[in-house]
Amino acid sequence: MLIVQKYGGTSVGSIERIQEVAARVAATHDAGHQVAVVLSAMSGETNRLLALARQIVEQPDARESDVLVSTGEQVSIALLAMVLKERGSPAVSLLGHQVRIETDTAYGRARIRQVQTTRLSNALKDGNIVVIAGFQGVNAQQDITTLGRGGSDTTSVAIAAALQADVCEIYTDVDGVYSADPRICPQAHKLERISYDEMLELASLGAKVLQIRSVEFAKRYQVPVHVRSSFSPDEGTWLVPEDQSMEEVTVSGVTSDLDQAKITLMRVPDRPGLAAKLFAPIAQDNIVVDMILQNASVDEKTDVTFTVPRGDVHKALEQVKNVAPEIGAEDVVYDTEVVKVSIVGLGMRSHAGVASRMFEVLAAEGINIQMISTSEIKISIVIAAKYAELAVRVLHDAFISSA
Amino acid sequence: MLIVQKYGGTSVGSIERIQEVAARVAATHDAGHQVAVVLSAMSGETNRLLALARQIVEQPDARESDVLVSTGEQVSIALLAMVLKERGSPAVSLLGHQVRIETDTAYGRARIRQVQTTRLSNALKDGNIVVIAGFQGVNAQQDITTLGRGGSDTTSVAIAAALQADVCEIYTDVDGVYSADPRICPQAHKLERISYDEMLELASLGAKVLQIRSVEFAKRYQVPVHVRSSFSPDEGTWLVPEDQSMEEVTVSGVTSDLDQAKITLMRVPDRPGLAAKLFAPIAQDNIVVDMILQNASVDEKTDVTFTVPRGDVHKALEQVKNVAPEIGAEDVVYDTEVVKVSIVGLGMRSHAGVASRMFEVLAAEGINIQMISTSEIKISIVIAAKYAELAVRVLHDAFISSA
Repeated sequence: MLIVQKYGGTSVGSIERIQEVAARVAATHDAGHQVAVVLSAMSGETNRLLALARQIVEQPDARESDVLVSTGEQVSIALLAMVLKERGSPAVSLLGHQVRIETDTAYGRARIRQVQTTRLSNALKDGNIVVIAGFQGVNAQQDITTLGRGGSDTTSVAIAAALQADVCEIYTDVDGVYSADPRICPQAHKLERISYDEMLELASLGAKVLQIRSVEFAKRYQVPVHVRSSFSPDEGTWLVPEDQSMEEVTVSGVTSDLDQAKITLMRVPDRPGLAAKLFAPIAQDNIVVDMILQNASVDEKTDVTFTVPRGDVHKALEQVKNVAPEIGAEDVVYDTEVVKVSIVGLGMRSHAGVASRMFEVLAAEGINIQMISTSEIKISIVIAAKYAELAVRVLHDAFISSA
Repeated sequence: MLIVQKYGGTSVGSIERIQEVAARVAATHDAGHQVAVVLSAMSGETNRLLALARQIVEQPDARESDVLVSTGEQVSIALLAMVLKERGSPAVSLLGHQVRIETDTAYGRARIRQVQTTRLSNALKDGNIVVIAGFQGVNAQQDITTLGRGGSDTTSVAIAAALQADVCEIYTDVDGVYSADPRICPQAHKLERISYDEMLELASLGAKVLQIRSVEFAKRYQVPVHVRSSFSPDEGTWLVPEDQSMEEVTVSGVTSDLDQAKITLMRVPDRPGLAAKLFAPIAQDNIVVDMILQNASVDEKTDVTFTVPRGDVHKALEQVKNVAPEIGAEDVVYDTEVVKVSIVGLGMRSHAGVASRMFEVLAAEGINIQMISTSEIKISIVIAAKYAELAVRVLHDAFISSA
């Protein structure tokens, strides 16, 4: 088999951990498999480097920041390759520009365009364990780019896709994907399998197991991904193409995301072009607007409410306050004490009444729903932050534990 | 003018120092010059990385070691480029593979084969300060190589040669090249100018101001090199092609090198091929043999004495003891308590009797000479280590202070 293994920052966070990773990698190789390993920086290293930069400049230049932080993965792969060779396993480290992982030029959040396989395949054919720097690539000018937080997940799935690997194993500090966060919902259980679409919703909803782009890659190229613990030999969760049996489960997971803030423009005249005028400057600031809700007009005036990541709320408010007079909003209010709670499941497609059941369950606890957004396989609601854990527990009880 | 500036590890050893470097670089650029800057790793960083490697493997793999330590310079150039941009100076960092500094494949002590100028020249033409990682290059396979300790000097001179720069300024923690080490010889003075050949001898004799290969590069491409302090605006020492006035000074400098050990094979049958049998295995171990002395034969037996770097003496002895029975040596002895003291000067070519004068001066102090080696512009002797400082002082007095 051709196996891609990805180890995150905590899995390579110390000399001892790197040796444990080497043992696992070597065992896989010794069992007769071809192995490509993708590594993150040692935990804390990326932050240490960014702190160094912020000691001298307030807003580090994006291109140079990528040159700086990409050294973290470079250190990891050199160390692991050394240990593997010392153990007698043939190994070779490769940086983004050596593999060549081609990206666009959006420093700090670049997207992979193509992964060259010539050097990778040759190194594997020669019997080497190939140790690849995650998180980094190069643009057409040979400039180093990085893929954003969690980018090593995407590197590993992209490598697996390019090599048509049999499996992409993502080793992490949790042992799989859970039906809810076990810290707030003791009834939560590990999912054996989950479809790419469900995982996409979970990843984008705050279940921080995988970078969302890695799941998009996995889905597009149908890469079997196995999320598992680097501290245990147990099976984790498989991300796979969906099959019929999956639809028998109505709801697979319940998630909550506290990284939310809600902004409302009060009594805005409801004219064509309102949304464009409001959201264009926010998008230009690279702020991701998630849910948008516009009430039915009363007297041709409407309230517009939307959510942004909590850390971006003041930047967003600046833009909103600039544009508010122009579009005639009477007032702007915001609330950072909110949470988005979501239920996700392929079965929701074929089961009617999931939404009304969800609202009933929450109403029974006296939880007021402020916003609602739905997709084919997901329902998200925004509620007061104080109800976050309670809502997850009662929804898990209603849809999963009792199923 | 097109100016290449190189800053060593102590010059970029802290956030404050990097800001001082930025100020100097920006001032040069503001004065209307084109500026390319070559940086070392922050002082201590290369050792920190190597220590990390040695925590896990006894003998780190050479290729991976270069991947590891080359991150040091990458951090420096990213930080300086950030500071320059923040100050409003256009700047761009370039790694070895981006410039492209092509080397052979001798990891850890690679030699530069060629410096591509396309990207460098374009960046300079666009008005940028180009900030280049010293010490590193790439081989034909795009693998990272490093140039050995002091390699950033060579990078800077090679860049200056390739760009046909007007000057290559080497900023360091001393303010120039001295006629002797001022710590042991208070009479020593800073040299205003020195020829490439004299500097080659001084560099190879333990005056650790410049990596010797950088001087070879400077000589081959006639690059004017200005060695100066990063902590002062004063002129330092210029390395220049020799001119007639230089020959008027008999001796330019006196140096001592304690990194020496002496090995003697006693009473070896003096047959053809003796030297080859003795030195081939030592060379294969990458040990540099410096001085070699073979006594005239007595009874067709001879003593062979040679020097090696002190750190290599035990490795060399192993090889010598393997080969000693084969070549019929009766005994092998060694001495690490020796020093090589040398006088260097273009004027020695035209002044007879410099050697005999040197021996007289030392004899007057009761210093016994163990080995002698001469070149056109240099005389080196090996003496007991305890006389190192005394010998430097009396030779400086005799040849330089009194001149």
